[in-house]
Amino acid sequence: MGFWKSLFSPTEASSVPTQAVSDDYAINTAAADQSARIVFSTDRNIDLYELEELCDAVGWSRRPLRKVKKAIQHSFLVVTMWEEQGARKRLIGFSRATSDHAFNATIWDVVVHPSFQGRGLGKALMQQLIKKLRSEDISNVTLFADPHVVNFYKNLGFMPDPEGIKGMFWYPD
Amino acid sequence: MGFWKSLFSPTEASSVPTQAVSDDYAINTAAADQSARIVFSTDRNIDLYELEELCDAVGWSRRPLRKVKKAIQHSFLVVTMWEEQGARKRLIGFSRATSDHAFNATIWDVVVHPSFQGRGLGKALMQQLIKKLRSEDISNVTLFADPHVVNFYKNLGFMPDPEGIKGMFWYPD
Repeated sequence: MGFWKSLFSPTEASSVPTQAVSDDYAINTAAADQSARIVFSTDRNIDLYELEELCDAVGWSRRPLRKVKKAIQHSFLVVTMWEEQGARKRLIGFSRATSDHAFNATIWDVVVHPSFQGRGLGKALMQQLIKKLRSEDISNVTLFADPHVVNFYKNLGFMPDPEGIKGMFWYPD
Repeated sequence: MGFWKSLFSPTEASSVPTQAVSDDYAINTAAADQSARIVFSTDRNIDLYELEELCDAVGWSRRPLRKVKKAIQHSFLVVTMWEEQGARKRLIGFSRATSDHAFNATIWDVVVHPSFQGRGLGKALMQQLIKKLRSEDISNVTLFADPHVVNFYKNLGFMPDPEGIKGMFWYPD
């Protein structure tokens, strides 16, 4: 199926490594079927209501779906994460990046469903995103991290304020 | 001329306020002609060698022009600043922003020629860029500032690390 595009080679597939899909995972997802697996996709044809449900689950403020759709269309890259069990698939993670297609990329809206957190899936999602950005010859991968996720990104190789560079946000007077 | 698109209304024109174009300015540019003025443009049809010369003047590392061209094409917005004297025009400032066209923009590559620094022209360039981004309904305007320009951006209304949000850069292991 076209939708389930693998980011990388077919042999590598787009499933996360075995250690990320632990027994815990199968139990928590109430899956009697051990064939449940996590897959990644770069397809942007996302059900916006399903995405909203995912963002609701982590407590994000709601945003107009019209603007969310536009943001997805104009992102350089979108990587989604799905739980797949037979024919069923459920959106459990989302991330995207803007870019100039040449030097810089900035990662936005990284989210993993709370029921799937704490087992390395956020890390796997980010690794897919970074690998894809690097394969597109983007050398400067950046993001703005909330305080409680700074360590998560540090563990992935992100450095806060390198050489004193400051992330800044414009606020209207 | 199509090239000299004004960002705003014709009455506002695209010249900087009078106080920015001081007597000092006319003297420093060796202009006997008092009609010299600063204009802004969003046109992306920029001579890449002229842009390289501008970046050389502030000591930036050279980048492949092929990639610079691609980055300009894929930026959401490019604002350039020119000294115009009669038919002559000279590129004296550059800035651009990436965006998802909906929520977020990130400003990159802000440069003002050293001979034109210290008279409010960098501020005027940034104000044009921000005004345009805001007119496009972008609410989150961000950037990564080198330590020596953090105060410059603070004076423009940018805040470093608001609510503890950290700018982070990915470095390969």
